[in-house]
Amino acid sequence: MKYIGVDLGGTNIVVGVTDREGNVLKTYTRPTIATRKTEEIFDDIIDMCKTLIEEYNLDASSLKGIGMGIPGEVDSKKGVINYSNNIPMKDFNVLAYMQRLCKEVNFDIEFYFANDADCAALGELVAGAGKGCSNLVILTLGTGVGGGIIIDNKIYSGFYAGGAELGHQTVVHNGEPCTCGNKGCLEAYASATALIRDAKRAASQNPSSLLNTLTENNLDNMTAKVVFDAKDQNDSVAIKLVDDYIEYLAVGVANLINIFKPEVLLLSGGISLQGEKLTKPLEEKVITKVFGNKLLTKIDIATLGNDAGLIGAAMLSR
Amino acid sequence: MKYIGVDLGGTNIVVGVTDREGNVLKTYTRPTIATRKTEEIFDDIIDMCKTLIEEYNLDASSLKGIGMGIPGEVDSKKGVINYSNNIPMKDFNVLAYMQRLCKEVNFDIEFYFANDADCAALGELVAGAGKGCSNLVILTLGTGVGGGIIIDNKIYSGFYAGGAELGHQTVVHNGEPCTCGNKGCLEAYASATALIRDAKRAASQNPSSLLNTLTENNLDNMTAKVVFDAKDQNDSVAIKLVDDYIEYLAVGVANLINIFKPEVLLLSGGISLQGEKLTKPLEEKVITKVFGNKLLTKIDIATLGNDAGLIGAAMLSR
Repeated sequence: MKYIGVDLGGTNIVVGVTDREGNVLKTYTRPTIATRKTEEIFDDIIDMCKTLIEEYNLDASSLKGIGMGIPGEVDSKKGVINYSNNIPMKDFNVLAYMQRLCKEVNFDIEFYFANDADCAALGELVAGAGKGCSNLVILTLGTGVGGGIIIDNKIYSGFYAGGAELGHQTVVHNGEPCTCGNKGCLEAYASATALIRDAKRAASQNPSSLLNTLTENNLDNMTAKVVFDAKDQNDSVAIKLVDDYIEYLAVGVANLINIFKPEVLLLSGGISLQGEKLTKPLEEKVITKVFGNKLLTKIDIATLGNDAGLIGAAMLSR
Repeated sequence: MKYIGVDLGGTNIVVGVTDREGNVLKTYTRPTIATRKTEEIFDDIIDMCKTLIEEYNLDASSLKGIGMGIPGEVDSKKGVINYSNNIPMKDFNVLAYMQRLCKEVNFDIEFYFANDADCAALGELVAGAGKGCSNLVILTLGTGVGGGIIIDNKIYSGFYAGGAELGHQTVVHNGEPCTCGNKGCLEAYASATALIRDAKRAASQNPSSLLNTLTENNLDNMTAKVVFDAKDQNDSVAIKLVDDYIEYLAVGVANLINIFKPEVLLLSGGISLQGEKLTKPLEEKVITKVFGNKLLTKIDIATLGNDAGLIGAAMLSR
């Protein structure tokens, strides 16, 4: 049995075929060209799916289904994209549009839809760092802070449409302004953007900090990696920045553990590339914050990187 | 078909029989006498169950099961009480102990166990303010802040044992000390205890406030109701206290809505008796905090009061 996954991103469309364990057998990639009409984007997707179906001689008995990860709010039951932030799609009925593929390949296909962050969570559960687990929470530490929740091997995305907004839990009442319009969200402290904001402030106030040297005295060059690199070189300003960053991240992680008691909590996104330099101090802080001071949830780094979304999308039909 | 529920509380044991809709047909109550040996407490429970079974002529074909709400951490799969805060029970195998009842009534009985707060959530879903819903979050505003989560008509209590600690999400980093040892938990702001703490401080600082009159100038008489009563009489100090209280409660509620997107979020416990005086201003604040500023979750007051736990326990076997 084979599984097709579609990872629709703001930059690229990736369509791939996997086996039941989520091993990717082959992928095709085309640029999304997000400014196009939505129909044209899905014409490309239909075309790529058709190529894989023909290449692998798939039919109703050998293709379990096609799953799609959508960057935005998707009504997974109806197969309707309510809206997307990166691609100007609105109230688009994907399920109806994809029926053309069934006609062209001459068999019925089951289609599945989910938010792309939710797909990434499912991908990690089936084939990544959450393999063998049934309950998982993932936090993506990137430009923003996103996340996904898996309960009993299934995506939990709430009663109404949209992904779990794990980055938009208030951790500091009336704190730093967040992109969502609220103040003090986890995202305003634990995103790479937040770390860069704080690092720029600190570098300005501390001219002798390595942060200035490493950015060639141009704060526009500041990245999260620069801050961690300066910390690794024992720059005291960077040490404080990273410690504060991990402190707030620990608050958000402890909140999620207190609420969900998940089997495993994974970190993904750019900052997670720090690996144990991130998870070790994080665990030390989380254990002081979690209810009863017992850490029964495993904290780990996601392993699938950019493939997580594609694999999770394919596994929607599993 | 009948359902027996056991609500084991720190003060009383209530055992009752319900129909499939959670309507309570009859209950028996005995004092818990929490200082007794755990076995003696469960001897009473066996006795009360037996009385109901005989009274209603129940047998394997007419009794669906017996469900128990336990005040503490219970391993519901194994039927073992890990520990309880109010009753000195530890690593007690209830499932094994209850087998004596099966022998005495001469038929096999299915037993179910859950945390008492989780039972209350299930009770409200089946027969209370959440009737007709499938996804629900409940926050209990009492001495502490507790809670329960229902997903797809079932209690969600996490991957490992214990209830959902919804009151122990940090909303103010390094804020007020909490009973759990952490700082800035929702419980430290949205419990009746927190409101009383703040009211005592404010009353001391404002001798002319009605708070002093209503407590007969003895701050030991301060209750949450006194604060709401003073607010209703336009006392400016109390108005500010209630507004601040609802502000923090709104942060916790918005966090839970952003994370769970539940169909309904219920408030229970003493402070919830304020009804719309609580929910109206709460909704106004929550809508400014929730992601996208769209409030798609219904916020309401739990309706079953003390019966919620018993009904939910009975409904564990539904």
